[in-house]
Amino acid sequence: MFTAEYLADYINKAIDQIKYPEQPAGLFDPIKYAMGSGGKRLRPVLTLGACAALGADISAVRNQALGVEMYHNFTLLHDDVMDRADMRRGRPTVHRKWNESTAILSGDAMLTMAGQLMSRCDATITWRVMELFNTTAMEVYEGQQYDMDFENRMDVTVDEYMEMIRLKTSVLLGCACKLGAIVAGANEYECRALYDYGIKLGLAFQLEDDLLDTFGDPDVFGKNIGGDIVNDKKTWLLISALNSDKHDEICRFIGSDTDAPTKIAKVKAIYEELGLRQQCTGLIETYIDNAIESLRSIEMVPGAIDFFVKIAQDSLHRTH
Amino acid sequence: MFTAEYLADYINKAIDQIKYPEQPAGLFDPIKYAMGSGGKRLRPVLTLGACAALGADISAVRNQALGVEMYHNFTLLHDDVMDRADMRRGRPTVHRKWNESTAILSGDAMLTMAGQLMSRCDATITWRVMELFNTTAMEVYEGQQYDMDFENRMDVTVDEYMEMIRLKTSVLLGCACKLGAIVAGANEYECRALYDYGIKLGLAFQLEDDLLDTFGDPDVFGKNIGGDIVNDKKTWLLISALNSDKHDEICRFIGSDTDAPTKIAKVKAIYEELGLRQQCTGLIETYIDNAIESLRSIEMVPGAIDFFVKIAQDSLHRTH
Repeated sequence: MFTAEYLADYINKAIDQIKYPEQPAGLFDPIKYAMGSGGKRLRPVLTLGACAALGADISAVRNQALGVEMYHNFTLLHDDVMDRADMRRGRPTVHRKWNESTAILSGDAMLTMAGQLMSRCDATITWRVMELFNTTAMEVYEGQQYDMDFENRMDVTVDEYMEMIRLKTSVLLGCACKLGAIVAGANEYECRALYDYGIKLGLAFQLEDDLLDTFGDPDVFGKNIGGDIVNDKKTWLLISALNSDKHDEICRFIGSDTDAPTKIAKVKAIYEELGLRQQCTGLIETYIDNAIESLRSIEMVPGAIDFFVKIAQDSLHRTH
Repeated sequence: MFTAEYLADYINKAIDQIKYPEQPAGLFDPIKYAMGSGGKRLRPVLTLGACAALGADISAVRNQALGVEMYHNFTLLHDDVMDRADMRRGRPTVHRKWNESTAILSGDAMLTMAGQLMSRCDATITWRVMELFNTTAMEVYEGQQYDMDFENRMDVTVDEYMEMIRLKTSVLLGCACKLGAIVAGANEYECRALYDYGIKLGLAFQLEDDLLDTFGDPDVFGKNIGGDIVNDKKTWLLISALNSDKHDEICRFIGSDTDAPTKIAKVKAIYEELGLRQQCTGLIETYIDNAIESLRSIEMVPGAIDFFVKIAQDSLHRTH
């Protein structure tokens, strides 16, 4: 079985080999820029890994792995416009480096290219691949819309939040895994197991993101620790606090003009008093365990389970 | 053979029957709004008409007709954000009625839904349908990018302009026709003939738009006559004048602070002196003739040629 590093290297080379038309440069340069931003390439690594784990050649799912990464980077590009974000992975965002129209149009082209890459597979499975991809994409938009809706709501429940992150983050990881399975000729049971792994992994990842933004090590994560608290972002932590008996206490800080360091310290203290840090850590560990458990009932090539276990556990090690 | 009115009615009913999830309303309400804006439904009418003209049942191409209309309305929605347009067909644009993030996200969802509708066809032709749709979509973005690039260029040639409108406008009409042909089981020659009809029709339509904006009857087209001149829009008329011996004369008005009525009158006079109004009218008639000529060599059901002739000629009658 391959390592995640090997597969990330494979997909990076495949990304470098994408042929773009030379003109108009104003359309394709931003796409190359967005695709060249690096990152762990988690989604295509899962697609390639799932395919290999079921005994098929990873080259068979190369287009779908590229498609899922293209789609992911399209969502980041358009999300950055919507969030008015200036930086992404240490570089100016596309709408800052170029302009907003360029970011919208190049993102649209990336979404179409993602669909084009997806559709390039054996004709016998095209329909399944396209239905999975399109259904997943619609769910991602729904998740993004709920996330925006939550900004203006004070009564979001933890269940609603978990459903939002399932849609916004998890389904694409589930889709990434299932694409590899479909192309490898897996049956519905195997597809479901790999999909479930991706879903649970995504939930753990998002909760870990929430946790790190508040309780991460500033030496590792830079000076931005506490950004979610400063911006009153509806994370698992804030929503859990709002649904606790410290509702009124936490409400006093939302939208308040308390200076950032004080606000961060006070809100963190409430989270600690409520035991939310431990609860969240426990939840993440449970999702990681459940993710791995999803795969125990299907047959994979030797070493495949270790590949998926390592990816899941690495998400926890981001705290260190 | 059906009439265009019958097919527009058919597609309007199909649009009304699209099932959207109830939640999140913030995502789906703008899509329903954008799809309910009316219009002639030219593209799906062509898709259904091409399918019927080749003897197939129009219900076979219903999803692709919906997909092409969904795609067209997606491009309008995102173009309106890029152009900061306030109104569309007499109603506020989506980004004005809601906000920009909503317009971006709902547009993305429309693009995905368009692809989803496209892919829902007989498995034996899915690949051809998807390749045609995706290739066309990429060309439309290229056309839009060229159109934006032209804003900052004074050396655009008439050939470059014609290529831009082929990409931005014509290829989607060609695609609309060819989709009907593919689903009807047409051979490559028949597909090509119908595609060419759409391309020529699109070029005639766009030139007619340019002409009407400057020389249209204000009683018919409202008080916005001359908007292209006021905004220095690079239309066929302006580009032709810039490439004539009146280059210096026309340049004096570009970016000038001359009041609108004077600027419109002076620039129109230059166009008339150069004979551009007649030249443009002649060009439109040639494209209409060529569009119809494309169809003469293929066999269609009785009355089909009249259907396509009427659609083409109606584009000319917009002046009256």
